[in-house]
Amino acid sequence: MPQLRQDLVTQRWVAIATERAKRPSSFSRAAAVPVPPAAQCPFCVGHEAMTPPEVMAFRVPGTEPNTPGWEVRVVPNLYPAFGPADLEPVISHVGPYTTMTGVGVHEVLISSPSHGDDFAQLPVSHIEKVVRAYIARYDAHRQNPAIRYILIINNHGKEAGASLEHPHSQLFGIPLVPSAVCEELDGVRRYRAESGRCVYCDIVTAEREAGERVIQENDWFLVYAPFASRTPFEASILPKWHAARFETMTVEQQKAFASTLHDLTARLYHGLNDPPFNFYIHTAPPHGDAEPDYHWHLELLPKLAIAAGFELGTGVMINVATPESAAEYLRNVDLSAPAPAVSAPGVH
Amino acid sequence: MPQLRQDLVTQRWVAIATERAKRPSSFSRAAAVPVPPAAQCPFCVGHEAMTPPEVMAFRVPGTEPNTPGWEVRVVPNLYPAFGPADLEPVISHVGPYTTMTGVGVHEVLISSPSHGDDFAQLPVSHIEKVVRAYIARYDAHRQNPAIRYILIINNHGKEAGASLEHPHSQLFGIPLVPSAVCEELDGVRRYRAESGRCVYCDIVTAEREAGERVIQENDWFLVYAPFASRTPFEASILPKWHAARFETMTVEQQKAFASTLHDLTARLYHGLNDPPFNFYIHTAPPHGDAEPDYHWHLELLPKLAIAAGFELGTGVMINVATPESAAEYLRNVDLSAPAPAVSAPGVH
Repeated sequence: MPQLRQDLVTQRWVAIATERAKRPSSFSRAAAVPVPPAAQCPFCVGHEAMTPPEVMAFRVPGTEPNTPGWEVRVVPNLYPAFGPADLEPVISHVGPYTTMTGVGVHEVLISSPSHGDDFAQLPVSHIEKVVRAYIARYDAHRQNPAIRYILIINNHGKEAGASLEHPHSQLFGIPLVPSAVCEELDGVRRYRAESGRCVYCDIVTAEREAGERVIQENDWFLVYAPFASRTPFEASILPKWHAARFETMTVEQQKAFASTLHDLTARLYHGLNDPPFNFYIHTAPPHGDAEPDYHWHLELLPKLAIAAGFELGTGVMINVATPESAAEYLRNVDLSAPAPAVSAPGVH
Repeated sequence: MPQLRQDLVTQRWVAIATERAKRPSSFSRAAAVPVPPAAQCPFCVGHEAMTPPEVMAFRVPGTEPNTPGWEVRVVPNLYPAFGPADLEPVISHVGPYTTMTGVGVHEVLISSPSHGDDFAQLPVSHIEKVVRAYIARYDAHRQNPAIRYILIINNHGKEAGASLEHPHSQLFGIPLVPSAVCEELDGVRRYRAESGRCVYCDIVTAEREAGERVIQENDWFLVYAPFASRTPFEASILPKWHAARFETMTVEQQKAFASTLHDLTARLYHGLNDPPFNFYIHTAPPHGDAEPDYHWHLELLPKLAIAAGFELGTGVMINVATPESAAEYLRNVDLSAPAPAVSAPGVH
């Protein structure tokens, strides 16, 4: 079973993913594993047998599970970092150290049958279905008492950690509220204690007033380059209304979110020639008293810099682009422009 | 001047390195900058005019500064992430946000005149001189009241962020104690409050007893794979005696440290075919009351995994190798074996 281990000094948790473990010699520089080509892609139509059986799919009526005919398909991860989901986490001790069983879930949400189309290319009407799948899978796990946090993430491009090229997102259900979310919850509470207001609502107001970090905006969402952006072209999608949970979006809000995600990723695709990126959705923990103080959002970080010795040793990122110049650049990308030339196969 | 910006929610600091700023379009995938070849290397002998004038060097007697004849050479970084060093940091506010001027120092310590030899190849007697240079530069800045922390780091290999191939370390003097060090200081104090003991001293005892995570050991240093290793083959060099400050090492301890650093990097070089890695030295902040509670150490993280959406969104790393298997593998590397074939130029 996967295992979580806590650092004795910093109290940071690390997941030791024994299900994905490799032999030590496989880490030798000569042994790099190439991304499989499309013909062997387990996420392509007709290859449904290459994945574990689907747990959900949006399908053409009348088609059978695990056969073609799907639009969005959700399967368990073949090499789960967390699981199983039907056990309570058990804490134990090894000498002075603390470990926890890595119970939970790890699912893959395949964006569409198309191997080459990601959010920047898919029609907004299709991205709405992806968003609907995010919410459906969130709802499938949120009552599980063993799962203390649910994170939906997307890795785009090999340099951003996508081990398969075919666009997909991942859902992790994990047995603790992770430090990155605890820091935000602490910040939300501290700011509210000091001001009586929601810090994210105040950011919406401040960024709309300043304008210089705004990338795009619609009735429901503000997209901006955070004032303390960690990487060049970091962007946040922030609901303009106060809501702790992304999974409570109305259908109208889901449509606006899908459109926002399309436009932001299209700006990156056209403006920066399809850079690798990661995004994740921070929503309130499923249990506990964080609601209604939290304010959900999506954070997107292009993989355009390397966290090297300084960043690892300090926790302070060095960002070589100002958020203001990044926002201006992305704001001015012409979304009606033709796509850049297709990159060489296997490059991303 | 470089600028530090604080995130309003998490209170994380980010350095916006305007001195190193690039045009937004330079981040486009097509615009990647290649590592310069050796013939244009500013750190090679005879190219001394390509760097800012040296601030220190160990030299053959009778040779002039900024000419050949040096063994270890220290120069200001041409594109400093922090500076200048002669001003107090100034905090100011932009809307709801907080910034600080990025005063400080950023120096490059060129390991040797050899373009191709790093710690795994250099004689231990030469690495002793590098260690001596670390301490000398640390001591040069530690009285500066504007500098609240001094970090020495080493990036090895392009994938680990080394923008120049010629082996070198970097010293950063920055105007705050960074979060990664604060977390350790908090952990040291918490553990001492609970147990009356130093957590790092207890780790030395526990790891020597367990044995399975020990990589190597000599009279002065224990090298081990941390129980909660964040990446495959993470390793810590921990002094077996309690000392808050690396810069207080005796000459005998410096010799043992140089030998330890050589052997650890040689294990990586021979065992994993020269993987990219980062290391940094965590020592007590130069000012304040952390001494004598802190316990200095070196942390080394091979760049063999990508921090992707899950890691960024949670702060929890997923490690696909157990520290026990990594330690066993590195412990068994034959340091008398011949070096692997040289990689193609420009690959790392």
